[in-house]
Amino acid sequence: LAEKERQRGRRRIREWGILPGSLPAGDDNSILDVKGIEVGQVTLIRGRGNIMPGKGPVRTGVTAIWPHRDNIYRNPVPAGVEIINGYGKAMGLVQIDELGELASPIVLTGTLNVGRAADGLIDYMLKENPDIGIDAPSFNPVVLECNDGYLNDLQGRHVKREHVHRALIMADDEMVGEGGVGAGTGMTSFGFKGGVGTASRVVKSEEKEMRLGAFVLNNFGRRENLRIDGLTLDRLDPDLLQGAARHQKEEDGSVIIIMAVDIPLTHRDLTRISRRAVHGLARVGSISAHGSGDFALAFSPAPEENENYCELGGKILSRLFQAAAEATEEAVLNSLFMAATMRGRDGHTAPGFPGREVVAAYNELFSEGS
Amino acid sequence: LAEKERQRGRRRIREWGILPGSLPAGDDNSILDVKGIEVGQVTLIRGRGNIMPGKGPVRTGVTAIWPHRDNIYRNPVPAGVEIINGYGKAMGLVQIDELGELASPIVLTGTLNVGRAADGLIDYMLKENPDIGIDAPSFNPVVLECNDGYLNDLQGRHVKREHVHRALIMADDEMVGEGGVGAGTGMTSFGFKGGVGTASRVVKSEEKEMRLGAFVLNNFGRRENLRIDGLTLDRLDPDLLQGAARHQKEEDGSVIIIMAVDIPLTHRDLTRISRRAVHGLARVGSISAHGSGDFALAFSPAPEENENYCELGGKILSRLFQAAAEATEEAVLNSLFMAATMRGRDGHTAPGFPGREVVAAYNELFSEGS
Amino acid sequence: LAEKERQRGRRRIREWGILPGSLPAGDDNSILDVKGIEVGQVTLIRGRGNIMPGKGPVRTGVTAIWPHRDNIYRNPVPAGVEIINGYGKAMGLVQIDELGELASPIVLTGTLNVGRAADGLIDYMLKENPDIGIDAPSFNPVVLECNDGYLNDLQGRHVKREHVHRALIMADDEMVGEGGVGAGTGMTSFGFKGGVGTASRVVKSEEKEMRLGAFVLNNFGRRENLRIDGLTLDRLDPDLLQGAARHQKEEDGSVIIIMAVDIPLTHRDLTRISRRAVHGLARVGSISAHGSGDFALAFSPAPEENENYCELGGKILSRLFQAAAEATEEAVLNSLFMAATMRGRDGHTAPGFPGREVVAAYNELFSEGS
Amino acid sequence: LAEKERQRGRRRIREWGILPGSLPAGDDNSILDVKGIEVGQVTLIRGRGNIMPGKGPVRTGVTAIWPHRDNIYRNPVPAGVEIINGYGKAMGLVQIDELGELASPIVLTGTLNVGRAADGLIDYMLKENPDIGIDAPSFNPVVLECNDGYLNDLQGRHVKREHVHRALIMADDEMVGEGGVGAGTGMTSFGFKGGVGTASRVVKSEEKEMRLGAFVLNNFGRRENLRIDGLTLDRLDPDLLQGAARHQKEEDGSVIIIMAVDIPLTHRDLTRISRRAVHGLARVGSISAHGSGDFALAFSPAPEENENYCELGGKILSRLFQAAAEATEEAVLNSLFMAATMRGRDGHTAPGFPGREVVAAYNELFSEGS
Repeated sequence: LAEKERQRGRRRIREWGILPGSLPAGDDNSILDVKGIEVGQVTLIRGRGNIMPGKGPVRTGVTAIWPHRDNIYRNPVPAGVEIINGYGKAMGLVQIDELGELASPIVLTGTLNVGRAADGLIDYMLKENPDIGIDAPSFNPVVLECNDGYLNDLQGRHVKREHVHRALIMADDEMVGEGGVGAGTGMTSFGFKGGVGTASRVVKSEEKEMRLGAFVLNNFGRRENLRIDGLTLDRLDPDLLQGAARHQKEEDGSVIIIMAVDIPLTHRDLTRISRRAVHGLARVGSISAHGSGDFALAFSPAPEENENYCELGGKILSRLFQAAAEATEEAVLNSLFMAATMRGRDGHTAPGFPGREVVAAYNELFSEGS
Repeated sequence: LAEKERQRGRRRIREWGILPGSLPAGDDNSILDVKGIEVGQVTLIRGRGNIMPGKGPVRTGVTAIWPHRDNIYRNPVPAGVEIINGYGKAMGLVQIDELGELASPIVLTGTLNVGRAADGLIDYMLKENPDIGIDAPSFNPVVLECNDGYLNDLQGRHVKREHVHRALIMADDEMVGEGGVGAGTGMTSFGFKGGVGTASRVVKSEEKEMRLGAFVLNNFGRRENLRIDGLTLDRLDPDLLQGAARHQKEEDGSVIIIMAVDIPLTHRDLTRISRRAVHGLARVGSISAHGSGDFALAFSPAPEENENYCELGGKILSRLFQAAAEATEEAVLNSLFMAATMRGRDGHTAPGFPGREVVAAYNELFSEGS
Repeated sequence: LAEKERQRGRRRIREWGILPGSLPAGDDNSILDVKGIEVGQVTLIRGRGNIMPGKGPVRTGVTAIWPHRDNIYRNPVPAGVEIINGYGKAMGLVQIDELGELASPIVLTGTLNVGRAADGLIDYMLKENPDIGIDAPSFNPVVLECNDGYLNDLQGRHVKREHVHRALIMADDEMVGEGGVGAGTGMTSFGFKGGVGTASRVVKSEEKEMRLGAFVLNNFGRRENLRIDGLTLDRLDPDLLQGAARHQKEEDGSVIIIMAVDIPLTHRDLTRISRRAVHGLARVGSISAHGSGDFALAFSPAPEENENYCELGGKILSRLFQAAAEATEEAVLNSLFMAATMRGRDGHTAPGFPGREVVAAYNELFSEGS
Repeated sequence: LAEKERQRGRRRIREWGILPGSLPAGDDNSILDVKGIEVGQVTLIRGRGNIMPGKGPVRTGVTAIWPHRDNIYRNPVPAGVEIINGYGKAMGLVQIDELGELASPIVLTGTLNVGRAADGLIDYMLKENPDIGIDAPSFNPVVLECNDGYLNDLQGRHVKREHVHRALIMADDEMVGEGGVGAGTGMTSFGFKGGVGTASRVVKSEEKEMRLGAFVLNNFGRRENLRIDGLTLDRLDPDLLQGAARHQKEEDGSVIIIMAVDIPLTHRDLTRISRRAVHGLARVGSISAHGSGDFALAFSPAPEENENYCELGGKILSRLFQAAAEATEEAVLNSLFMAATMRGRDGHTAPGFPGREVVAAYNELFSEGS
């Protein structure tokens, strides 16, 4: 209820009438527009006050993304990855790059939780596939992270195996909670509360219609660099910029981008698509700072077995590249617009993004100006 | 004179009062703000009418960039490269990546000229270093290109060795012509005339002041994706968008970005800086389309010999990353603002960018709107 | 004692008079010839008979390598990595590649233990550095693995945090146990028992003397491909080949190579050195099979702070490349020569390498033949 | 005739009864075992005595490899590349890596000829495809090189466009001349005459039979590192090693490896195959010295259009990896065994490999020794 309360009045950027980019969004404007994908999130909020390392306060969580629910270990899907800036602790990407396939759910969490989350993920997969490592090959857990230590007791590693299991089990294709939920619980961005966001784009060729969905775990950015549909806060309303400076943490945050396309593509094309996440990040204001662990992963949820890879022409590929940039941009913006203020350890506070004020300034600019 | 005439009324974006990004520009807002660098350009414009392959019309040229003039073959400089999208015919980048150093002037030209330009560059270097390949190692010519075939008789390969020699010899540190000059002569961008552009940024730490200069050869972009300081033409004035559609060529163009920093950095840091060119491109509207050959090269003009590499802290590195993004963005915009309309083969025309009208719309928006 | 017993009669290849390569070995022919490095190993052998997933039999372990003991988190060392074939689950390599430095002990273990080992490593580092993730950046655990599931109950993940702690704490610079110890406990290679091996080479220039040490975790190879100083077993004595075929597991094993050089080198040179591990592997008979996770990591144990990187000339670099190839080759051979027969789960047995017989055949060949 | 004369008594290593590796060779033990491929070579030998830069002596040439003769520009083939060590001046590899396809004949020549050879190749392709750069995309010439400057007047760039044209036109699928012919004319290796070599391997699965052919341009290696089927010359007969030291040039030579597989593979699998060339090189004695430009390129000659990529299982892929290593090893050895003594500039001489003596020592070793 408190969650609902806090979210009151929050809307996604598109609901405010601002449409970043030019391609149409999918039905739900979400990675769930790509059929087969399921997402589960577990949010951990506990305690307040000064940090007691190992105890709290707890502002963290875990998010699980299933490419499909039909035994991903046995039915891997084609995938590609891009390391935009490698100051991060991701697990599992190297094997994806070598084999061109993803054979694990994707788990996202806070930085120091990675080892435990991987271990919990292994538990789960062993139960589904009791022959792993006995008569069958080993399993490559895919776990990505951002650092939620500004709000959270990072050292505590409060994501336990049962949380990972719950995120995996409870995943569904109904909706993706955005903002400070799941792995996004303790994340901050551009001096505001960040976290989880999603968006999608539709690309049409003469023969087919494709959906590209993006999911981001957003924990990066300096406030003065933020751009809303191309406009800095300073341009929109200098007050938006000033009041917030003291809340701002170091800029060296990170972002994870997961993309899915609902046609079977080759490893090569998916790798190329993953390389366009950075275009969306840059539009929002990223410079991929020195300390950022910015990783992108793109996959097609169709299992590799029934593969008839689509070899797309250059024009359609370029539209998918544009879709990747636009969906990433909007997913980051959604994570901001949907996140409520969060107080964490040691009085650290990540203020909720003032969506209403920003939109008012934006509308004023364009209604008067043109 | 005609050149001057055509340029009449053209100004760089900053002169119009639009300042992309937030870091200050260097004195000349040019790659020449980095001391030691010299640039020479040869412009070839000849003939008109329908294409006669091998004969004309000629709309091409060559640009030479010297990291320094103190025998670059004997005194290589630290350098790094990034392949943003590899649909291009560059020469020499692989060895730079392996050795972490640049030992050649950088030559830019039209796509099919690369072989001849390399051969002309070799001529020149052999004269300066008559022991190459006899008692001394071979020479690695660095030649980059974009495709000027929309306006130019590409097959004709009209850049001859004497043009390369002239660009190398006449290079100076006085100014960089922008727009449709040198290698930029036949380039188009966002449905307008493109070509050469430059810009720079200054980064200050407590201990030192650094300049980062960017030079671009700009031949990419779809008009509807163009963003002027974050704003699409459609946002500024829909008329700007409409009139031009029929001039537009395929979007699969390319862009080359050369960056220089005036402190000695390691190969690793220069590689990381080169990876931030894409952030600047994305802000202007790039999606690095399928058919783009988008390459970035960053170097420090201080020779490797007297090397005391600066190992910069993360904060300063992040500011240099921001400088790379901003200087790239502004250099692309300068190449547009400074390029006059060019007619080429078969009635193909690249209209000069309507800078005055764009700026008027921009100013109207912000003067009224806020 | 039992350990000693089993090792009775085992000698390193060089002690038998076979000297792979042409550069001289260091004093101990070990990665410990590089001063500052310390190695600790914990061996877990428990139970026998059929596998009871989660219970045993246990044939696994953990090895910890400290680049130095002077707080590696605060005093990182320059490092580079190479992914020879990426079918592996290593943690931490991406950040090393981005930053060019190693800020963690290196932990090696069996495949599914990686998450737990990383978590145990984090525990340890948090105690030494209680500000991690609070006032200081996060920590990047480096954990590498091979699959010991042929002998071991892989699913059981029997390496617990206390084992990791013990390996870290008990590490010393006295000697490296070889064969079936530490992370090598359950490894197999070329149809024999594999595991841990080490070797070193000395390179002299006019000005200085350098040592390059290699440590391998060896779990790869088909018996018919094995080469002892260039000679297949078939060439040496066909009987060596035949008797063993039935013990042979799938060839898709892996190998990890850790290299250290006792002069401060740049990230670039260390990356290039790491790329020569494959030359040593190939000489022993590797083809880097499809299912191999073959990773190499090279570092200089001198902390980055007091850095005066040595920029070596090409000749000396080439000798270091040769040292990397030769030390890798000999380390793999040592891991074979030193490993005693190990019985594991389900009657799986990895026979100890018949060093004495191989050497006899080798000596016979060369004493008679020439 | 003189050529024939000089070759008298020369045999490929397999004809002497030495069979490197364990997989069977194809019918001709040549890259031409892969149907569709055609090879043409032009050898330029002119003048003697001291070097007169620009004039001679000339010891160079050019080799052209057609993946197929059915308009490769319009019908590109899947391909992958690997840069083993990047101290080289290759053209065209970046685009192959981005698009996963080869759309050009492969031209090999001496280092400084690359620009001219590319220009000659462009000429040829423009005639076949007069719409290039007008109504059709540009063309990506693929030219690779080694440095023949030890014997040849490198500065003279004696390979002219007509030589390139002749190599392209005269290419056939009848046989590949080996040793000092075509691009191999001036190459040296392990202190002997090197040059062109080829070999092949056959891999059988239950369903199909595949051929992998390798072609090398061999210009690398120190004599003491050379291994004939695993054995150094010193092991075979120390006299072989001693007599030759004074002929030896710097070790920093290079090698180019072209591989073809006669089933349609994806870019990913071909890239992985290209990464196994280094295993073959290492077996012959390569350490990929600092100054080496060691590049591998693998392709399937089946055009991309009628693509039904074979997705091979891991076992078959591993056998293809082994085939890549073995064919590369034997191709290098063939280039040595088939090359006659060549005298070049300034009294530099590359002695023909003493195949007969080496084989005698080899046979003596094994006949007596076992």
